[in-house]
Amino acid sequence: MKSKTPKESYTVSTQIVLPNDTNVLGNLMGGRLLHWMDIVAAIAAHRHSSRVVVTASVNHVSFEKAIKLGDYVIIEAKVSRAFNTSMEVFIDVFVEDSNTGNRLKSNDATYVFVAVDQQGRPIEIPSLTPETELEKERYDTALKRKQLSLLLAGKLKPGDAPELRDMFLEKTRLKEL
Amino acid sequence: MKSKTPKESYTVSTQIVLPNDTNVLGNLMGGRLLHWMDIVAAIAAHRHSSRVVVTASVNHVSFEKAIKLGDYVIIEAKVSRAFNTSMEVFIDVFVEDSNTGNRLKSNDATYVFVAVDQQGRPIEIPSLTPETELEKERYDTALKRKQLSLLLAGKLKPGDAPELRDMFLEKTRLKEL
Amino acid sequence: MKSKTPKESYTVSTQIVLPNDTNVLGNLMGGRLLHWMDIVAAIAAHRHSSRVVVTASVNHVSFEKAIKLGDYVIIEAKVSRAFNTSMEVFIDVFVEDSNTGNRLKSNDATYVFVAVDQQGRPIEIPSLTPETELEKERYDTALKRKQLSLLLAGKLKPGDAPELRDMFLEKTRLKEL
Amino acid sequence: MKSKTPKESYTVSTQIVLPNDTNVLGNLMGGRLLHWMDIVAAIAAHRHSSRVVVTASVNHVSFEKAIKLGDYVIIEAKVSRAFNTSMEVFIDVFVEDSNTGNRLKSNDATYVFVAVDQQGRPIEIPSLTPETELEKERYDTALKRKQLSLLLAGKLKPGDAPELRDMFLEKTRLKEL
Amino acid sequence: MKSKTPKESYTVSTQIVLPNDTNVLGNLMGGRLLHWMDIVAAIAAHRHSSRVVVTASVNHVSFEKAIKLGDYVIIEAKVSRAFNTSMEVFIDVFVEDSNTGNRLKSNDATYVFVAVDQQGRPIEIPSLTPETELEKERYDTALKRKQLSLLLAGKLKPGDAPELRDMFLEKTRLKEL
Amino acid sequence: MKSKTPKESYTVSTQIVLPNDTNVLGNLMGGRLLHWMDIVAAIAAHRHSSRVVVTASVNHVSFEKAIKLGDYVIIEAKVSRAFNTSMEVFIDVFVEDSNTGNRLKSNDATYVFVAVDQQGRPIEIPSLTPETELEKERYDTALKRKQLSLLLAGKLKPGDAPELRDMFLEKTRLKEL
Repeated sequence: MKSKTPKESYTVSTQIVLPNDTNVLGNLMGGRLLHWMDIVAAIAAHRHSSRVVVTASVNHVSFEKAIKLGDYVIIEAKVSRAFNTSMEVFIDVFVEDSNTGNRLKSNDATYVFVAVDQQGRPIEIPSLTPETELEKERYDTALKRKQLSLLLAGKLKPGDAPELRDMFLEKTRLKEL
Repeated sequence: MKSKTPKESYTVSTQIVLPNDTNVLGNLMGGRLLHWMDIVAAIAAHRHSSRVVVTASVNHVSFEKAIKLGDYVIIEAKVSRAFNTSMEVFIDVFVEDSNTGNRLKSNDATYVFVAVDQQGRPIEIPSLTPETELEKERYDTALKRKQLSLLLAGKLKPGDAPELRDMFLEKTRLKEL
Repeated sequence: MKSKTPKESYTVSTQIVLPNDTNVLGNLMGGRLLHWMDIVAAIAAHRHSSRVVVTASVNHVSFEKAIKLGDYVIIEAKVSRAFNTSMEVFIDVFVEDSNTGNRLKSNDATYVFVAVDQQGRPIEIPSLTPETELEKERYDTALKRKQLSLLLAGKLKPGDAPELRDMFLEKTRLKEL
Repeated sequence: MKSKTPKESYTVSTQIVLPNDTNVLGNLMGGRLLHWMDIVAAIAAHRHSSRVVVTASVNHVSFEKAIKLGDYVIIEAKVSRAFNTSMEVFIDVFVEDSNTGNRLKSNDATYVFVAVDQQGRPIEIPSLTPETELEKERYDTALKRKQLSLLLAGKLKPGDAPELRDMFLEKTRLKEL
Repeated sequence: MKSKTPKESYTVSTQIVLPNDTNVLGNLMGGRLLHWMDIVAAIAAHRHSSRVVVTASVNHVSFEKAIKLGDYVIIEAKVSRAFNTSMEVFIDVFVEDSNTGNRLKSNDATYVFVAVDQQGRPIEIPSLTPETELEKERYDTALKRKQLSLLLAGKLKPGDAPELRDMFLEKTRLKEL
Repeated sequence: MKSKTPKESYTVSTQIVLPNDTNVLGNLMGGRLLHWMDIVAAIAAHRHSSRVVVTASVNHVSFEKAIKLGDYVIIEAKVSRAFNTSMEVFIDVFVEDSNTGNRLKSNDATYVFVAVDQQGRPIEIPSLTPETELEKERYDTALKRKQLSLLLAGKLKPGDAPELRDMFLEKTRLKEL
C-alpha cells in the first residue's frame, strides 16, 4: 500500500456562527465546534484511507478564545500520523472577525479515526510520510500524545510508557507536544 | 460560599439516534455525541455554579461501541471536582438497544467548564464535597487528569508535574485514572 | 406477560431553550415543547412495552408559564396505565431558570402510544402495577381521561360513558382528573 | 373592533416528510406533526388578531394513519371561535402519497392561542363571524370542547359545566363534537 | 397522457423566519429562501408529473426586499410550462409583516425540474394547458427564458436562438419576460 | 480604496451529504446545494468587501450530476467581478465519491451580492483585479451575464443591451459565457 503525504488528506471547511450555535452570551458553544471538527477531520481521515472511518477518540481540546455570533470559523485538518488501522488527524481552527476581517488561530485538536470495512471491522491503511517541518514535528509527537491519551483514559500503566517515563526523568521541556 | 455535593449537579438527558446523526454504516457519528455531552455537562456545571459556564477543555474521550440508528443514548453528568473558577464534569454514557431494551455503558468523558460573569470574566465558584466512593475516587484523580491534560496540550513542562513524575517513578498502576 | 411498574419506564430528558426554539418575545414556542414531550414519552412507552411505539393521541396540554431563552426544560415521563395494546404516558415538565437555578413545575400532559410489530400492527403489552399514591391516582383517573378524550374527539356518545355520566349526576368534584 | 371571518385567518403549509422526521418504521413521528401544526395554527391566530400569539393549550389530537417518508403533509388552519383574548384554531391535516398523488384526510386538531402585547399580557381580539355550515358547526361546538378540555385538565368541576351535564342527561348524540 | 392545468399543480407553503434563518442584520438569508422555494416548487412539479422530480436548473432569482426575523413568508408555485420530460415552475413569494399584517410581493423565480423513474432516468410527463391570462403569458415567455438561460449557461450559441435574435433585431420591448 | 485580487476572497467549504439532505432516490436535493453555495459565496463576498453582504440575485444554476448520500461536496467561491456596490461571485462545485475518492466537477453558479452598511444601505466596495487566465475570462464575461440576467428578469429592454445585440448579429460563438 503506497504511503501518502499529509497534503493529500488536507481538508478545509468554513462555517458562519448562527444564533442556534451560541450560548446566552452570544458566543459559540464548545459542543458545536467539537461537532464541526469531527466532520472535517473525518473527511481528512477518509481521504488518507479511502475507507469508511469512525471516530475512535478525541484528545485534549481547549477553547481559549470566545468566538462570536456571525464570525467565520475556518477548520483545517490533515492526517498527522498513520498507525496500522488508525490515524491521528491534526485540526487547526481559525476565526475571522466578520467586521474587521482579522484572522486569528483559535485552537487546535487531535482526533483519532479507525478505518473500517463494510462490516465495521478495522482494516489496514497506508502509512504517512510527513513533508514540512511542522508535519514532521506533529508526526514525531503523535506517539507521545497516544501514550498520554491512553494513560489519561486509564488504559495504559505508567510502567508501560517508557517514552513518557524518560520524558519525566530527563526533565526536558517538550517544545511542542 | 457553601460547598456543594456532586448529587446537586446531577443531570441526565436521553436522546434517540436519528438518521441525520448517523454515518453511512448507520452508526452514531462521534461529533454528534461530543455535542450532546457538551450540552448535558454544561447544565451540570451551571447547577453547581449558578453561573453562565463556558467549555474550557475536553479531555480524552474514546468511542468504543458502535451506537446504532434508533438506539437510545442516556447521558449522565455530575461535577467531579471544583477548582477556583473552573470545574471538571464527569460524563457517563449509556446505550439502550431499542429492540431488546438492554442497557450498556458506552463510554465516559471529562469536560472542564469555567464560570463567567456577564462580561465573560472568570468568577469564583463553590467547592465540591464528594460523597460516594466513586465520587471520591473521581475527585482524587481529577488533579492528575488536569496535569496530563495540560501536558498533552503542551502547556505544562514534565518537571512541573511532580505528581505525575512520582507516578512514573513508582511504577504504580493507576486503579482508575 | 409480566406486569411492570411505572418506575421501570421512568425517562427524563433535559433541554436548553435555544434561539430557534423561541418566538419574537424570546419565549419557548409551544410546538417545540410538544415535540420534545413526544420523544421523551415515546422512550417511556418503549421501556414499558419493549416494542416499537407510535403516538396514538395527545390529550389536553396547557401552557401556563412562559419559558425563556436559555432556560433549562426538564421533561419526565412514566407510563401511567397500560391497556391491551396501548398505554397512557404521564409527562411532567419543569423549568429551571438559568440565572437563579429556581425549578418550577411548568405543566403536565398525557400522551397515548400504541405498541406495534414490524408490520405496524398493534401488539399486546404488559399490564401496569402502580406503586406510589400519585401513580395509583393517575392510574385510576386514566380511564376517565380516555372517555373524556374520546368524547372530545367525537368518537364516543355520552350515553356510552357511564362513568362520566355518574360524575355529572353526583356533582362530585374530581380531586385530580 | 371589527369582527372577522374564518376565511381571513386561513393558512396552509405543505411539508415533505424527511428522514429525520421518521421513526424506525419509516413513518412520521407524532411530535413533528404536533410541531408543524403549532406553527401553522399560530400564523392563523396571528392573522385573526394581528397580535403576537402564544399557544395556550392543545386539545385532543389523534393520529390514525401512518404517514410515510417522502409523503407530502398539507396542514390547513382557520380560527374557529374567538373568545375575549383567546381563540380556538381548527386544523385539518391531509396526506398526499408521493407516488400515487392520492390525497387523504389524516387527522384534525384544535389548538388554543392567546393574543398578548409586547409585555406578554393578554389583549382583546376581534370576534369571529362564521360563514359556511362547517364553520358554524365548529363555532357552536367550540364551547363544549373548551369545557371538556378544562374538565380533562382538572380545572373545571362537573357541576360548573351545565352544557355538558345536559348533554349527558339528554343522552343525545353529538353530531360532530 | 392527459394534459393538465397549472391549477392542478398549485402548491403553497408558509414559513416563519426564525433566528437561524437570518444574517447579522436580522434579515432572512437568500440561501434559506432558495431552499424553501426548491421544496415548494418540487411538490408542484410532482403534482403535475406524478413522478419523482429532481431540480435541473434555477433561472435568475432576485432578492429585492429585506425580509425580517419573525415575518411570514408565503411561497406559491405552479407549473408554467411542460416540455418533454422537464417542466418550468413559476414561484411567487409574498411577505407578511408579523406586526401590521401587510402582505407584499417579495420576489419571483423560475426553477426547472426533470421527472425521473426509479433508476433516475428522465421520463415523459403530461403537457400543460394554461387557463388564465397570467398563466398564458408565463407559458409563452417560458421558451425565451429557456433560451436565455442556456445562453447564460454557455450551452447555446446565439446563432441557434432565432427567437432571441429576432427580439434584438426588432428592438421590441418584452412585456413581461 | 485599494483594488483586490480574486485570490483574496477565495473561500472553500466541504460538506457531507446527510440523510436529511436527500430526496427519495437518496440524492442531494437542489435546494440544499443552493443554500450551501449561498453561505460560501457570502463569505467570499465579505472577504472582498469587508462589509455585511446580502444576496442580490442568483443567475442560472444547473444541476447535472446526481450527488449521492454520503458523498463529499466541495464548494469553492471567488469574487469574479466587482461593480460599484455589488459583486459577482463565481462558485465551482466538486463532488468526491466517498468510496473511490474520485473528484469530479459537479456544477458552477454565479451569485451577486451587495455590500451594505449597518442600516442596510448599499456601500462602495474595492474594485477587482483578475490575475489568472480563467479569472480574466470570468471577469470579461461577467458584464454579459449581468445583462442576460436582467433581460431574463424582465428588467432590461433588448435595445438597451448593445453588447448582447452585437453578439447576436455577429453570430460569433461565446467561448465561455
